[in-house]
Amino acid sequence: MRARVVVTLKAGVLDPQGKAIEGALSGLGFSGVDGVRQGKVFDLVTRHTDPTKAKAEIGAMCERLLANTVIESYTIEIMG
Amino acid sequence: MRARVVVTLKAGVLDPQGKAIEGALSGLGFSGVDGVRQGKVFDLVTRHTDPTKAKAEIGAMCERLLANTVIESYTIEIMG
Repeated sequence: MRARVVVTLKAGVLDPQGKAIEGALSGLGFSGVDGVRQGKVFDLVTRHTDPTKAKAEIGAMCERLLANTVIESYTIEIMG
Repeated sequence: MRARVVVTLKAGVLDPQGKAIEGALSGLGFSGVDGVRQGKVFDLVTRHTDPTKAKAEIGAMCERLLANTVIESYTIEIMG
């Protein structure tokens, strides 16, 4: 079973990398950009066949390794 | 208008970071993981109000800055 985890900075947490990208886009002539925030995506393959169990285990992975829950939030999407 | 860009390594491109995460998950006792690949996500706010135009401009941003299209592919999702 495949799953996608998206880890993004929580609102209010400064994102200097996103700001740098915004500046670079502006420098390239893309003037219509009002904000950029960068996050991470993890595409996992798990041996679980039950989506509920897969999601629970991946949630535990996020809590322990994939996300820093002090400043980041995560979403888990089971892709079948 | 908000949009999400997901940049992932193309199939066949080695992902040492993903491998390291897979090893770390295994070390933490998550034994059911068969593969991990890491990518990037960009959450953009654009001033375009037409989804088609927004998508076209963001596609150009991906080609020029956000993705290395030799080894990465990207998807653009307009989130309204």
